[in-house]
Amino acid sequence: MAGTDSRKKSAATSLHEDGPAIILVEPQLGENIGMAARAMLNCGLSDLRLVRPRDSWPNRHAVSASAGATQVIDHVKLYETTAEAVADCGVVYASTARSRDMANDIFTPRAAATDMAKQIANKIKVGVLFGKESKGLTNDDIALANAIIHVPLNASFTSLNIAQAVFVVAYEWFQTMNASEPHHFAMPKETRPANKQELGGLFEHLESELDACGFLRVKEKRPIMVRNIRNIFQRAHMTEQEVRTLRGVIKGLTTMPRSLPRKK
Amino acid sequence: MAGTDSRKKSAATSLHEDGPAIILVEPQLGENIGMAARAMLNCGLSDLRLVRPRDSWPNRHAVSASAGATQVIDHVKLYETTAEAVADCGVVYASTARSRDMANDIFTPRAAATDMAKQIANKIKVGVLFGKESKGLTNDDIALANAIIHVPLNASFTSLNIAQAVFVVAYEWFQTMNASEPHHFAMPKETRPANKQELGGLFEHLESELDACGFLRVKEKRPIMVRNIRNIFQRAHMTEQEVRTLRGVIKGLTTMPRSLPRKK
Repeated sequence: MAGTDSRKKSAATSLHEDGPAIILVEPQLGENIGMAARAMLNCGLSDLRLVRPRDSWPNRHAVSASAGATQVIDHVKLYETTAEAVADCGVVYASTARSRDMANDIFTPRAAATDMAKQIANKIKVGVLFGKESKGLTNDDIALANAIIHVPLNASFTSLNIAQAVFVVAYEWFQTMNASEPHHFAMPKETRPANKQELGGLFEHLESELDACGFLRVKEKRPIMVRNIRNIFQRAHMTEQEVRTLRGVIKGLTTMPRSLPRKK
Repeated sequence: MAGTDSRKKSAATSLHEDGPAIILVEPQLGENIGMAARAMLNCGLSDLRLVRPRDSWPNRHAVSASAGATQVIDHVKLYETTAEAVADCGVVYASTARSRDMANDIFTPRAAATDMAKQIANKIKVGVLFGKESKGLTNDDIALANAIIHVPLNASFTSLNIAQAVFVVAYEWFQTMNASEPHHFAMPKETRPANKQELGGLFEHLESELDACGFLRVKEKRPIMVRNIRNIFQRAHMTEQEVRTLRGVIKGLTTMPRSLPRKK
């Protein structure tokens, strides 16, 4: 039942060819298939499988909603049954919001991603089932799965769009596979962080002007006022360019002749 | 410029009233506004603000795409400028995929969620800016933000649907605020995990039948075969009901008269 070969890959992509297959069972809306494909490619996934889509395939609404994720849309595989769609998978997860009358391992998307990474490291093909928009997965589909993925959400509004469900599973998988720096400081290439000497120059410049104008005249308060002002700029992680800009500001404020009357 | 009051709250909801405000700047498609509202409510957020939406508001496409997230859609606030929309926020994050010619703190959505939780614990109102579908945020909008949120994605396909961008920020915030068990085992209320005595009874039953039929006849191989078979069922985390079912299966296979001819 498999359709086209998804092995073709352009040099410019960074797909995880062995990443989880995303299997949509009886998807109803082409738009949702397209948005799911876009979300997959956002997260480096390309193996999209459809079991009995309601509308004909290829589907122009899916193409339009995929926003250029042709690497996914053009290589979709079609299946008649869920069992055929997961036949090559060693481990299958079922994404479902509903509690079931079956005993099951239940993972959050994040924990599932870690589990998937382990399986994939062991060369096991992994698939994730998503049910139709209106009703989710059937119990027969869920019985094909080794475990459930349940997205923790606001308990009073758990109805998740199918493309969002695909996205959160793919997103967590991508985060697990591509550890990224949680927080960093970025700046334009032309500049660099100001060093302490440059920052010290700024402080001396500012404080000498504040001494000159009398702002720091109360001797016993001067140390704490200076520290507080310096702290503001220390926290700001300024670039060398920004330090020069601020020195220009101080110079402008203190030495340039006013060309406009002072506001009352 | 603020519109309706968002303080109204039905008893059935579990909204985080002090959660981050989601601010869409010049959103173009009502569908995307609706999907963003749905994603917000999925994650317990309700404070949705629009700066100069392209189409008129209220918008029927937004209502339809919100899939019943009326708690969000009905209380949307409209603003003429981004500055007005964030006026009550102590800390603002800008969600953007593009690198900018500005020095900036850059967070992943996960790290941003932790940062937001800290701010909110300190009673600081937090807002997150999202730009228009076609062009994202302007540099002037970004200059209103304290930090950037950048979603780590497949570097060759980073174009994220705006509702997905809202979802991932809201999702990470929800996960941070609502620690959930990453992996657990669920079963129907009527049953419970099988205890070791019940499991032992199953093993003895099965092994006595396997001894009887000669399957375990090679004496030196018997211990390892028994261990391998037991291991399968140990891993399965069976319920008491399932153990009884399996004992019925064994009994059926070994004692019930065949009513159909054996397959060749």
